[in-house]
Amino acid sequence: MKIGIADTTFARVDMAKFAIETIKKNSDAKIARYTVPGFKDLAVACKKLVEEDKCDIVVAFGMAGKMPIDRQCAHEASLGLQQAQLMANTHILEVFVHMDEAKTEKEIYSIAKNRAERHALNALALLKGKTELTKYAGMGRRQGKNDDGPIKIK
Amino acid sequence: MKIGIADTTFARVDMAKFAIETIKKNSDAKIARYTVPGFKDLAVACKKLVEEDKCDIVVAFGMAGKMPIDRQCAHEASLGLQQAQLMANTHILEVFVHMDEAKTEKEIYSIAKNRAERHALNALALLKGKTELTKYAGMGRRQGKNDDGPIKIK
Amino acid sequence: MKIGIADTTFARVDMAKFAIETIKKNSDAKIARYTVPGFKDLAVACKKLVEEDKCDIVVAFGMAGKMPIDRQCAHEASLGLQQAQLMANTHILEVFVHMDEAKTEKEIYSIAKNRAERHALNALALLKGKTELTKYAGMGRRQGKNDDGPIKIK
Amino acid sequence: MKIGIADTTFARVDMAKFAIETIKKNSDAKIARYTVPGFKDLAVACKKLVEEDKCDIVVAFGMAGKMPIDRQCAHEASLGLQQAQLMANTHILEVFVHMDEAKTEKEIYSIAKNRAERHALNALALLKGKTELTKYAGMGRRQGKNDDGPIKIK
Amino acid sequence: MKIGIADTTFARVDMAKFAIETIKKNSDAKIARYTVPGFKDLAVACKKLVEEDKCDIVVAFGMAGKMPIDRQCAHEASLGLQQAQLMANTHILEVFVHMDEAKTEKEIYSIAKNRAERHALNALALLKGKTELTKYAGMGRRQGKNDDGPIKIK
Repeated sequence: MKIGIADTTFARVDMAKFAIETIKKNSDAKIARYTVPGFKDLAVACKKLVEEDKCDIVVAFGMAGKMPIDRQCAHEASLGLQQAQLMANTHILEVFVHMDEAKTEKEIYSIAKNRAERHALNALALLKGKTELTKYAGMGRRQGKNDDGPIKIK
Repeated sequence: MKIGIADTTFARVDMAKFAIETIKKNSDAKIARYTVPGFKDLAVACKKLVEEDKCDIVVAFGMAGKMPIDRQCAHEASLGLQQAQLMANTHILEVFVHMDEAKTEKEIYSIAKNRAERHALNALALLKGKTELTKYAGMGRRQGKNDDGPIKIK
Repeated sequence: MKIGIADTTFARVDMAKFAIETIKKNSDAKIARYTVPGFKDLAVACKKLVEEDKCDIVVAFGMAGKMPIDRQCAHEASLGLQQAQLMANTHILEVFVHMDEAKTEKEIYSIAKNRAERHALNALALLKGKTELTKYAGMGRRQGKNDDGPIKIK
Repeated sequence: MKIGIADTTFARVDMAKFAIETIKKNSDAKIARYTVPGFKDLAVACKKLVEEDKCDIVVAFGMAGKMPIDRQCAHEASLGLQQAQLMANTHILEVFVHMDEAKTEKEIYSIAKNRAERHALNALALLKGKTELTKYAGMGRRQGKNDDGPIKIK
Repeated sequence: MKIGIADTTFARVDMAKFAIETIKKNSDAKIARYTVPGFKDLAVACKKLVEEDKCDIVVAFGMAGKMPIDRQCAHEASLGLQQAQLMANTHILEVFVHMDEAKTEKEIYSIAKNRAERHALNALALLKGKTELTKYAGMGRRQGKNDDGPIKIK
């Protein structure tokens, strides 16, 4: 199994590092990394990781600034990743952090680390098969913060 | 006939369970399930259910949070499903619930259950042929809440 | 010539009926109908009408609710139709009515009927050739309400 | 050389006429015209002008109303044109006028005429080669109003 | 190695010139240039630079006006570039400047120049391989303004 890791120089946290550590600790999957300038460069990078490096799944890391235009750019990057997945017939887990998700840089760092690690585990689970995550279906799992958990009806 | 069921660990209600129960009660269709982390992972999962598992139709379940960014993410997931349908030449019924559709978790649960069950029936109807639902054309049918019904002109 | 008619059970007016009556009154074109749950199911339905039923043109009928999320959903459905047209190399006339286009249900009904009938005539015109409508180019024609007409410069 | 001209009956100015006059005055290019109901019908029309009529470039004319929904529709039409260009591997110059670009109909008419004529010249330039317009690169050229010109740094 | 440079006559700064100077100073890569009217014409131009001129990477320069409609147009152009990259399987670095990024034309000029030069260097780096930029991953690099740098956690 081979996992692609695509990330950016724009991001302010090296999320890929956390993901790679998590993957190495929990599997013997091979890793191919591709670093691009910004998240709008991720879609084609991920497609290349699948097609040129024969990755079985890709995790894509990006970070968005605080301005309205940053949200629009994240939207464009995300739509590119949707299309890349369909063209490459392969999962690309989008791991984006928005700088306005928290008030302090410390919190952003913590969200980024946690989200990267949990999505690395999601990638490993998806590689095991289509129903590996079914035991958690509808369980309100989150990445980057605590799980919301399932809605409980008395 | 084979029906694909794609769902997420992000959702806070196990909608797929309700759909599967409805399908089993009303047909002898086979079912293939695929659980992914979030709704942006659904498009390629649905395409794989069609191409790898030979599903004749897919129902995709997702849940969106309450923040503006959640709405944007739902939009991206939904556009992915539009494209996946066209690429796979197969219906993918989008069954999304937005956490701001109701004020209490109990209501959300109830909307999610009803929407899942009714769209499971829609999937069964679509499998019967292009005009199976024509008797309800323009009848204001809803999933997740009561039908609005057709506009009546005196 | 064969005209595809795709419509939904979500809509509150049976627009397809008006279109079919108009087509029958004005041509001997064959008609293939496909009824789906909602307008996000239209794109692949229209593509199937072209590819499976050999329709030469398709008219797609949908109705959007009043909430902001409904507008977003209409946007997704519309982008699906854009893509479907390009993939099928065939016109798909989008006939959408928004519930906030008028204040009373009676007006909505009237808009829906008029828009359906006029777009049925547009479909017949497009089947005749690329310049059939050229005599009306820039004439401010509308469907669902009165024509705005061309801008007149004294 | 052959230039495709796609336009609509929705527009309130016959922009194509101005473009055709400009093309005839400045070249001996052949012209193929295709008139459709609205601008959401342009993308596939332009693709057909390339594929069926062997046009080397297409100019697409549309006009958007003043309401928010009109802006969304223009967005959908424009994204269709982006995709059509990539699928047809051919330039499609988008010549859209928004009814809220000016306060009087007279001004709209004047913008529409000027924009149509200037984009007709752009089409002729693009047909000459990839660097035909390079002498104007970064020069702040506009269509429909006066050029902004390049930023001058003292 | 060959680098495509796509730019517009709409922009008010000749960004391509700065990029070309930077490329020539730092490499012996060949350059192919393509100038189009506006940024919505860039996607197909970039695809042609890859397919017809055999460019290994493309840098696309555009400038957006200050109005809301300009932002929407930038969004459309950007989505076209996302798709073009995936279809051409080649990086297209999007170098867009928004006229509302700064208050004075002098600042805009300075942002445009810096962004063009830095992205030219990014293009050269990407040509060297997938991990050439990995040493800067998560380092908060910017183009057009000072780097934000990585988040530092004590």
